Amino acid sequence: MKRIMLIVSYCGNNYCGWQKQNNALSVEEVINTKLSELLGEEICVIGASRTDAGVHAKGNVAIFDTNSTIPPDKFAYALNSRLPDDIRIQESRQVRDDFHPRYDKNSKKYTYRILNSKISMPIYNLYTLHVSNSLDIDSMKKAAKYIVGEHDFKAFCAVGTGVKSTVRNVYSLDIDRDSNDIISITITGNGFLYNMVRIIVGTLIQVGTGKIKPDYVEQIIASKDRGMAGPTVGAKGLTLEEIRY
Amino acid sequence: MKRIMLIVSYCGNNYCGWQKQNNALSVEEVINTKLSELLGEEICVIGASRTDAGVHAKGNVAIFDTNSTIPPDKFAYALNSRLPDDIRIQESRQVRDDFHPRYDKNSKKYTYRILNSKISMPIYNLYTLHVSNSLDIDSMKKAAKYIVGEHDFKAFCAVGTGVKSTVRNVYSLDIDRDSNDIISITITGNGFLYNMVRIIVGTLIQVGTGKIKPDYVEQIIASKDRGMAGPTVGAKGLTLEEIRY
Repeated sequence: MKRIMLIVSYCGNNYCGWQKQNNALSVEEVINTKLSELLGEEICVIGASRTDAGVHAKGNVAIFDTNSTIPPDKFAYALNSRLPDDIRIQESRQVRDDFHPRYDKNSKKYTYRILNSKISMPIYNLYTLHVSNSLDIDSMKKAAKYIVGEHDFKAFCAVGTGVKSTVRNVYSLDIDRDSNDIISITITGNGFLYNMVRIIVGTLIQVGTGKIKPDYVEQIIASKDRGMAGPTVGAKGLTLEEIRY
Repeated sequence: MKRIMLIVSYCGNNYCGWQKQNNALSVEEVINTKLSELLGEEICVIGASRTDAGVHAKGNVAIFDTNSTIPPDKFAYALNSRLPDDIRIQESRQVRDDFHPRYDKNSKKYTYRILNSKISMPIYNLYTLHVSNSLDIDSMKKAAKYIVGEHDFKAFCAVGTGVKSTVRNVYSLDIDRDSNDIISITITGNGFLYNMVRIIVGTLIQVGTGKIKPDYVEQIIASKDRGMAGPTVGAKGLTLEEIRY
């Protein structure tokens, strides 16, 4: 038996998210179907991140166990020839038999992209959130400093998720604007609560438009009250870039 | 009567190109329909560039004449509220009555995007050409120097187009690779023959893979033979960035 790790990239537009659901197609289900066809045995992968409907990934991680004699690095190619264009395995390799993509210590990196322009630009529609009000990047960067570090992020977690602890460590939060008016918000941390990245971005947008002051973010964190933070912004701007172990 | 200029952006995926065709939806036709609805008179815009099926635009240009009392700069907003998401008017303004988007002297800027990576990345599928063989940017830049300037570009024109002159002036051709392995080829000139940008890119890719040497491009130009140049690469990587008058 070998445990194989897959680095999985996908465009989230046509999927109900990573996780298998009734009545809707998930990325996980497509991979399970194609892997099972390839190997002639029923395979159920275990994914690292259960990305939501519409969220994209450049580097989600999944594992499965197999007795197949296919060399570990060849699973990527064998699977890609069967997968639809909007899912691609970037890499496959053998990992230790007790490696677990969720329980092994890791850091995740997400990028959220905003097109900040008066009028939307069609070629960016699918992968950015359009914000027409001018965003003050410097204010957003000041607010970001309050988010970096180990905090109880309960105010930035969708209500009713029932996790044991809402303490997480955000290692970095970078904000850049490029020449196409696309603002990229890149955040890394040891784990993220349900909708946490999208609520942080929704809050940073409120800072950027001047609705709240940068240092108010400190109070939002302290409140542990979801009602204090900004809205959960749309999924299409979010990409899971990378998971490091 | 006022002549109004529109700066038109669109995602080319769902259109047969700019120009009206039977049995397929064009960008021009959608704009004509929505403008005619808005103004209660039949409007036929004249476009600057008849982009092909699948080609995108950030800044194509179109004009129309009207007696409407809508302020010139408000046509953009009025139209955008009626247009589908994949077409957006970036700007509208009055121009002189004899302004013509094709016959007035102008320079056009196109960008062609290539994802140069072993395995394709789904979030870039719609707006890049995937080239899995490693491309040598330095060789491509050397080849680009032969293309810049005024030349007879007959070798880089789709056969059978019947234009009077195939002489064009390429002002600049820049090639850059970003941290996501996306190579952007940006080209400006006083006009481009049918498929010219896509044939230039097809030829530069042959240089980048080592199939032909950079200085061979000089011979291709001199030959005036379409058969000497590289293939016409796919439309989805091409964006008409801007037209300047």
